[in-house]
Amino acid sequence: MSGVIVTNPPKARPEDVEALAGYGVATVSEAMGRTGLLGPEIRPVQQGVRVVGTAVTVLSWPGDNLMIHAAVEQCGEGDVLVVTTTSPCTDGLFGELFATALKQRGVRGVVLNTGIRDTQELRDMGFAAWSRAVCAQGTVKATGGSVNVPIAVDGQVIRPGDVILADDDGVVVVPRERAREAAERSAAREAKEAATRAAFRDGQLGLDRYGLRDTLKRLGVEYRTYEEYAGDGS
Amino acid sequence: MSGVIVTNPPKARPEDVEALAGYGVATVSEAMGRTGLLGPEIRPVQQGVRVVGTAVTVLSWPGDNLMIHAAVEQCGEGDVLVVTTTSPCTDGLFGELFATALKQRGVRGVVLNTGIRDTQELRDMGFAAWSRAVCAQGTVKATGGSVNVPIAVDGQVIRPGDVILADDDGVVVVPRERAREAAERSAAREAKEAATRAAFRDGQLGLDRYGLRDTLKRLGVEYRTYEEYAGDGS
Amino acid sequence: MSGVIVTNPPKARPEDVEALAGYGVATVSEAMGRTGLLGPEIRPVQQGVRVVGTAVTVLSWPGDNLMIHAAVEQCGEGDVLVVTTTSPCTDGLFGELFATALKQRGVRGVVLNTGIRDTQELRDMGFAAWSRAVCAQGTVKATGGSVNVPIAVDGQVIRPGDVILADDDGVVVVPRERAREAAERSAAREAKEAATRAAFRDGQLGLDRYGLRDTLKRLGVEYRTYEEYAGDGS
Amino acid sequence: MSGVIVTNPPKARPEDVEALAGYGVATVSEAMGRTGLLGPEIRPVQQGVRVVGTAVTVLSWPGDNLMIHAAVEQCGEGDVLVVTTTSPCTDGLFGELFATALKQRGVRGVVLNTGIRDTQELRDMGFAAWSRAVCAQGTVKATGGSVNVPIAVDGQVIRPGDVILADDDGVVVVPRERAREAAERSAAREAKEAATRAAFRDGQLGLDRYGLRDTLKRLGVEYRTYEEYAGDGS
Amino acid sequence: MSGVIVTNPPKARPEDVEALAGYGVATVSEAMGRTGLLGPEIRPVQQGVRVVGTAVTVLSWPGDNLMIHAAVEQCGEGDVLVVTTTSPCTDGLFGELFATALKQRGVRGVVLNTGIRDTQELRDMGFAAWSRAVCAQGTVKATGGSVNVPIAVDGQVIRPGDVILADDDGVVVVPRERAREAAERSAAREAKEAATRAAFRDGQLGLDRYGLRDTLKRLGVEYRTYEEYAGDGS
Amino acid sequence: MSGVIVTNPPKARPEDVEALAGYGVATVSEAMGRTGLLGPEIRPVQQGVRVVGTAVTVLSWPGDNLMIHAAVEQCGEGDVLVVTTTSPCTDGLFGELFATALKQRGVRGVVLNTGIRDTQELRDMGFAAWSRAVCAQGTVKATGGSVNVPIAVDGQVIRPGDVILADDDGVVVVPRERAREAAERSAAREAKEAATRAAFRDGQLGLDRYGLRDTLKRLGVEYRTYEEYAGDGS
Repeated sequence: MSGVIVTNPPKARPEDVEALAGYGVATVSEAMGRTGLLGPEIRPVQQGVRVVGTAVTVLSWPGDNLMIHAAVEQCGEGDVLVVTTTSPCTDGLFGELFATALKQRGVRGVVLNTGIRDTQELRDMGFAAWSRAVCAQGTVKATGGSVNVPIAVDGQVIRPGDVILADDDGVVVVPRERAREAAERSAAREAKEAATRAAFRDGQLGLDRYGLRDTLKRLGVEYRTYEEYAGDGS
Repeated sequence: MSGVIVTNPPKARPEDVEALAGYGVATVSEAMGRTGLLGPEIRPVQQGVRVVGTAVTVLSWPGDNLMIHAAVEQCGEGDVLVVTTTSPCTDGLFGELFATALKQRGVRGVVLNTGIRDTQELRDMGFAAWSRAVCAQGTVKATGGSVNVPIAVDGQVIRPGDVILADDDGVVVVPRERAREAAERSAAREAKEAATRAAFRDGQLGLDRYGLRDTLKRLGVEYRTYEEYAGDGS
Repeated sequence: MSGVIVTNPPKARPEDVEALAGYGVATVSEAMGRTGLLGPEIRPVQQGVRVVGTAVTVLSWPGDNLMIHAAVEQCGEGDVLVVTTTSPCTDGLFGELFATALKQRGVRGVVLNTGIRDTQELRDMGFAAWSRAVCAQGTVKATGGSVNVPIAVDGQVIRPGDVILADDDGVVVVPRERAREAAERSAAREAKEAATRAAFRDGQLGLDRYGLRDTLKRLGVEYRTYEEYAGDGS
Repeated sequence: MSGVIVTNPPKARPEDVEALAGYGVATVSEAMGRTGLLGPEIRPVQQGVRVVGTAVTVLSWPGDNLMIHAAVEQCGEGDVLVVTTTSPCTDGLFGELFATALKQRGVRGVVLNTGIRDTQELRDMGFAAWSRAVCAQGTVKATGGSVNVPIAVDGQVIRPGDVILADDDGVVVVPRERAREAAERSAAREAKEAATRAAFRDGQLGLDRYGLRDTLKRLGVEYRTYEEYAGDGS
Repeated sequence: MSGVIVTNPPKARPEDVEALAGYGVATVSEAMGRTGLLGPEIRPVQQGVRVVGTAVTVLSWPGDNLMIHAAVEQCGEGDVLVVTTTSPCTDGLFGELFATALKQRGVRGVVLNTGIRDTQELRDMGFAAWSRAVCAQGTVKATGGSVNVPIAVDGQVIRPGDVILADDDGVVVVPRERAREAAERSAAREAKEAATRAAFRDGQLGLDRYGLRDTLKRLGVEYRTYEEYAGDGS
Repeated sequence: MSGVIVTNPPKARPEDVEALAGYGVATVSEAMGRTGLLGPEIRPVQQGVRVVGTAVTVLSWPGDNLMIHAAVEQCGEGDVLVVTTTSPCTDGLFGELFATALKQRGVRGVVLNTGIRDTQELRDMGFAAWSRAVCAQGTVKATGGSVNVPIAVDGQVIRPGDVILADDDGVVVVPRERAREAAERSAAREAKEAATRAAFRDGQLGLDRYGLRDTLKRLGVEYRTYEEYAGDGS
């Protein structure tokens, strides 16, 4: 595969992307049926920042950032750059210079299934980043790859133009066609959670609110006093 | 195993638990003969917070938080919730709604041998948490488990009512019968460490303070100048 | 091997070490031909701190800090303690008491290919530390090892007197004979990066600045519209 | 997502699948431009076995094998079952009873992004299997998922009907539309490799065969005698 | 903790232990309610061997095999040695000399939550072993620990005298008081599995045998043709 | 660093290398003071094979095998190829074609701190290999590196011409100047072990043979009956 750079992928509509900005990663993932989450290995380099935007995807060779340079040109206002490699890689494929270029173009953040560097500089300049590793190891520009093709990261497929939402809990992807639906479902979920939160503050138990006492009974889970339990000898 | 919920386990005495509040995880673990530590994979989601309390234990199925709901009812003032799963799991079994319910009941924190979510919200509401992973992945409520039975986490057995102490260094468990002893030993260790700290500030060496020069000699460790060493050709 | 303590290893010249203080780990590693980096597993326990100094090296038995006591005596103004073990170990071989002793001697920080403890205390006292794990597990003083011999950590050889530079991105080692060269190269690289940064702020692309369009062409990477790409059926 | 079972997905044509049977995983992956490989964590439970077939895909909840039961009904002659979970899981979702059912239906093997059990029995009955872990941990049948939807495993998307080829080196997926192309390219690659093999047996060097001496020169790699190299003092 | 060597722990009755010899690890674990399994990281060094016996437990310091020497004296006919360390350790704490001593005493095998060495020799002499790692790294005899105290390994508590059963699928522990019950339950499970195996060979589906079609329906899992599914645009 | 290929490094004397052929990795490592071992992650792809030879070292870029081609020319009778990368890499940098070329030149095996492929073919042709991963992922030939420079792998420095010994327990390196000494020490150790083995077969205990009863006493390890121990309530 010599690689391809796709120049004008479809994107989620901006107003739908913005509609998602008010929700957290957990909420949106739950609202979409517990789908779209990248795993716990991809962590933010800053704390307390949430970013939402449309994916520009990169598939690079390990130890090589050539295709990120190609991707910068494809990035614009409201995008989030998402980078993976053809095999596992912790090198610092991304740093402060790329962030400078992307910020100039209105890009909102970066998600790396590899390493990142210049983390202090990135925090200082307020460019949001999530990565699999922090590592200063530099890269070459010698091997081809692709930009704006679908990539598979941590069990999720990310297509160019899909919505990327990231916060302290991690990263979730929403298919570009479903951004509106995701926002609506998230609003519904948040309303439901607000009611639950209020009930929990008032002392209601999840056991009662969700009808779980019957579930426990059906599953054969039994209540025992400590004396009964200890008396079993197990 | 259909699972069991034990309703009134014995607990360490509150005054003994409080007596431990002034000591760090490293101090208490050392004082108890270097025992009780959970391993380095379980990390705090906040910085600079120390919590001490009595364990309410949960054994859940992976990807399932049903038994945490059952456990909430068993939790009260001064408790710390401790959750493990029957097989390795990084899903976010615990989040802000559970924290709301627990806070209302006077629970002091949570230790998860799994994932956690809503980390920013937890920090904002000041609910202390330690976990093996941060992951927004949601859960079902479909499979039974147990509450307040002994669980084995990272090489340690945690029984309901045992003392859980957690800070930036990790988590230590003290058997409920030994809380008083642990506090006394910790006080003694801290006094000893204070003396050592003062001596070190004055420039005394551990080699001298602990009589280690003889140890080195007995073990055959030799002092060499660089020239002697380099001359060996090794 | 009974072990050896080398008492007067050669060191990088202080003025050369200081000359490196103004550069980050990524810059110095790049300037030295992408060499010298420890891998991404060794992380700082604090944020926003950079340290540079000359290595005092320790090779310890796992679970044993005897040789760190021996090393303290070999440490002085401007040093950085670097500790590894003969086999993988996450125990807390280093904590606040050692830091007290080292600070009194003018040591600038510690790099541990093992665990560390008392992390909150270390942050409070401003003693900089990088480690593979955070773990309160204590140690014995029972088995010999070496001080100020070359050690191999994460693919790098660190000799006593080599320059250790550490920041939020990780840790890099510069051979003691090449400290001056490293500083000069880092200055050159930083100048080049400043120009690139300015160009990127002005909207120039890396593709143009580095002449990468030809590289892409040579490698057979092709530009396609989304319609062309989607029409391929791949 | 309540999940869906897709009943009649398109499949690679049987004759194209068979055409791939003569090639190894490395050959096919190379022939397809170094694409399609699952990573090194998914390993065979037997040695010296190669399997090729069309994918029946399963997306299960961790610790739950309900959807594998649903998938068995969708499996037939020449298929390979491919199972992943919505979050990381090492439980033994698959064992000898499933293998019995699948063998009866003409299924050729199983690829699990989870754990497997009954490994000795599987070897005895000659049912080929690849998995991320070996673990006897049993499962429940309590939570929904999907069969024959696209799944993302280890950076690859696997759709129902795609070709799965597995041997001692691991597992590769070929898109169902490209099976014929993959076989043709593999034949070409194997011919080329046979020529190279013969040349290497005759003592030709890759440096000469692939024209790499110029590459080395262009990259600035220099030949030095040991004396020259050692004299550098580096 | 200076450590203790317990000299005459209670043990499962020999006839009950033997009654378990005919069952595999998966069967026994399932029969006991999916309990007792050590995780997938502890693997056999040989293939096709099953061992059952009563545990002699060892808690050692990392990198130190002193307590294994102490444990040999406590081992006898029908025992299985089980070794863990106070913190993670991959060193080769056990090798062919220990196996020689244990074999002479009628010990049936060893389970190590650490590393092992002399693996070829162990296979040649037919001494069965399971371990977390294979590593030739040697050990010292310098730090105390305990023999025949309860240890916690991979989420399971193993007490001296408990039954250890190990095969290619891993290791399971059965509490010493429940060996008889475990054998009886395993027999029942095996009978049930034999019936299922026969049914599966006849082509019956698990969906029908276990009544899972209703479960799928209750959970909202739907059957769709590929055309219906693809038409959704998801 | 553009990289360098060193053409005539010094090597351990052939007769000294052969003298080591009779000993296992564990024996030689122990004989040399428990030094030189690569860690447990580097595993053989075959079983029951031992190889000894002189190292030809390679430092490659991740995902790139250019420098292995350069190294083949530097390899000759009695050598063992040792390959590492500048950052972590699991790609299959080495396969059957390289093995064909090396076998033709009298090379005895390969040790890879990366991935390997064509494992079945390598076993069939009897070319011995040890690697960190098995992965069919192919490589490019685009970035420079070095041949026959010292490399640091898993805590050990390997220089060209050093002795590499590998078997089922892993890989050990002996400095080229110390090959004779290593053989002599290994012979002595083996004699000592033979005596111990005989003693253990006769029923002598390590406790007595090594005088460890005093060690246990000095360390405060106490013997207790189960009744005494259980009576403590701990």
